[in-house]
Amino acid sequence: MSEHDWQHMALALELARSAKGQTAPNPLVGAVVVKDGMVVGLGTHVKAGEPHAEVHALRMAGEHAKGADLYVTLEPCSHQGRTPPCARAVIEAGIRRVVVAVEDPNPRVAGAGIRLLQEAGLEVSVGICAAQAKRLNEVFFHYIGTKKPFVTVKTASTLDGKIATRTGHSRWITGEESRKRVHRLRREHDAILVGVQTVLADNPELTAREDGEVRGRQPLRVILDSRLRIPADARVICDGHAPTLIYTSDKAPSARQQELEQRGVEVVRLPDGVGIERVLESLGQRGVTSLLVEGGSAVNGSFLEAGAIQKVIQFFSFKLIGGQGAPTSYGGQGFAEMQDAIPLADVEVEMIGSHDLCITGYPVWGQPAGRDLTCLPD
Amino acid sequence: MSEHDWQHMALALELARSAKGQTAPNPLVGAVVVKDGMVVGLGTHVKAGEPHAEVHALRMAGEHAKGADLYVTLEPCSHQGRTPPCARAVIEAGIRRVVVAVEDPNPRVAGAGIRLLQEAGLEVSVGICAAQAKRLNEVFFHYIGTKKPFVTVKTASTLDGKIATRTGHSRWITGEESRKRVHRLRREHDAILVGVQTVLADNPELTAREDGEVRGRQPLRVILDSRLRIPADARVICDGHAPTLIYTSDKAPSARQQELEQRGVEVVRLPDGVGIERVLESLGQRGVTSLLVEGGSAVNGSFLEAGAIQKVIQFFSFKLIGGQGAPTSYGGQGFAEMQDAIPLADVEVEMIGSHDLCITGYPVWGQPAGRDLTCLPD
Repeated sequence: MSEHDWQHMALALELARSAKGQTAPNPLVGAVVVKDGMVVGLGTHVKAGEPHAEVHALRMAGEHAKGADLYVTLEPCSHQGRTPPCARAVIEAGIRRVVVAVEDPNPRVAGAGIRLLQEAGLEVSVGICAAQAKRLNEVFFHYIGTKKPFVTVKTASTLDGKIATRTGHSRWITGEESRKRVHRLRREHDAILVGVQTVLADNPELTAREDGEVRGRQPLRVILDSRLRIPADARVICDGHAPTLIYTSDKAPSARQQELEQRGVEVVRLPDGVGIERVLESLGQRGVTSLLVEGGSAVNGSFLEAGAIQKVIQFFSFKLIGGQGAPTSYGGQGFAEMQDAIPLADVEVEMIGSHDLCITGYPVWGQPAGRDLTCLPD
Repeated sequence: MSEHDWQHMALALELARSAKGQTAPNPLVGAVVVKDGMVVGLGTHVKAGEPHAEVHALRMAGEHAKGADLYVTLEPCSHQGRTPPCARAVIEAGIRRVVVAVEDPNPRVAGAGIRLLQEAGLEVSVGICAAQAKRLNEVFFHYIGTKKPFVTVKTASTLDGKIATRTGHSRWITGEESRKRVHRLRREHDAILVGVQTVLADNPELTAREDGEVRGRQPLRVILDSRLRIPADARVICDGHAPTLIYTSDKAPSARQQELEQRGVEVVRLPDGVGIERVLESLGQRGVTSLLVEGGSAVNGSFLEAGAIQKVIQFFSFKLIGGQGAPTSYGGQGFAEMQDAIPLADVEVEMIGSHDLCITGYPVWGQPAGRDLTCLPD
């Protein structure tokens, strides 16, 4: 591996990132073609069903691809999907050497793309920037492995950990810049999830907005509501900005279900109650690869207790509100002993403007990996 | 002001800082004597009753002081206190020019030292690094102005704002490095304050320890306990490591007071109940200039609601514990609307080791500046 290899792969990772939020259920992939030290082709996978990154990069390189090196953040595919296999295209373009960041965990690929290239006589190097490439597609790697969405819990609290005042007032905790960031986060996820309590308290839109307007791809809105207490005139029911899916239990009245369905909302009854794992399995089956959980307190607490969080994004505002009765970012029952607390790894701390902080981290689940609560409190 | 002026004053500030925690009720002061561009005298005020910083620096300079420049972080005093007036010593040493960071707010000085120097024909420059010099002596400036201690509330919580689990378990939230930092903080304060609830729950020593041993100057231990529920065998009552002072109310039984007093503890009854302002006035009258409030939740909340916090030091550990019933860093009643939240200014964010964060800030009290709760909950 030369310094140039790192440099070109870093560029490929950058290209991949540029399509963040657009490619589900496919991973982000970037590709760079280099001939005699010159970058001659760039590509990124833009959208599922459209050409893969390698194809774009090879097209751009054209005749330059002959005898060139290809850098790609994920193993080229070997199977005929909605597009032809990339490994084949790479061989046909006359590429000499392929540098791959990480193997594709998709069981339909899983090394087969690399073998195809090697069998055709191409030199293949695997593993450069592997950690970054996996993190880049953390959603994809998780979804492929578990068939459940990658769960990010986003909270916004005062410095004393409150997500609202004791009276339930929560507008606004963080500043405009943090809130803009949240809208971007929403756009990057396949679905957003809240509990009915949040709908009752705040009547949120749960859309990805820009300058106050609903714009671009909208995530599926998922509401946990075991008794169907959601008002028929709630924004998520009526505004038509994005599809809404409600998970409920046997306890919910059928008449309420019909009323909601007539308004175009999908209602799914989970016979064993609205358990976190059941919800995640169901969402996974629908092709939801990434889920942004936006609380409230009880719902976040249930995800924590279920061990069902892959990533935590915590906004803090530099202010104090006080109040033992004010809700906190993670409520629920909570763990009993401090040694049961869930540590976060790979924590990043970032100032947002001059009044907010954003802390991102990855929960490290011990053995046994949390408990699953059968039902949410309601 | 030349670049050299900044440089020399920065050195004087550094010298002043070196005596942090030792000088109460006097301010930290540093002094530097410079002759022909060479540093010839250094001084810091070590301890109340001992020579002021200027005197040490002039002594070190000796004959070099003649025609030299003196940099001092606080106006030289003009009055005969426990030591002779420094302005006089500066004049007698033959100093040519005096650079002062900030005027002394002490009404017995308040510009008189500067006038004395000017009348003797010395050149005087005031205001260089003034903000840093005030912050350096934030305690002194506050105490002189209000006759009450400068209050710092220190909390340690999980990332979801909990200072203990729902069962009250709190050892340990933060790592060893943060806890060391807390012991240093204690040493730097005249007094530490907790509510009786914290004594009942944790039975803390409230001493400044190093490698587990009680070492150096120990702060006064102050307990708020309106009914004298504190156990006679609590560590703060029995260990003899530092004096303990209990504030209580008329509601407390006399027999309990006698029992505690027999163990060498001072008990002060506040006829109107254990109100934050009354406690601060009383501590101020005793010469307590700095108070470190270490909670728990209700006590911190009371200080917040009373508008009686000058500084906030918040340790966060990168872990989640959950639990709606778990206590948070600031409990009490809390403010009702998010716009009533108290913003922090001059916030500093610092990583402590790789698992904790320390956030320091200064609450900005609006008009009216908080409310005083007459009595603490008990």
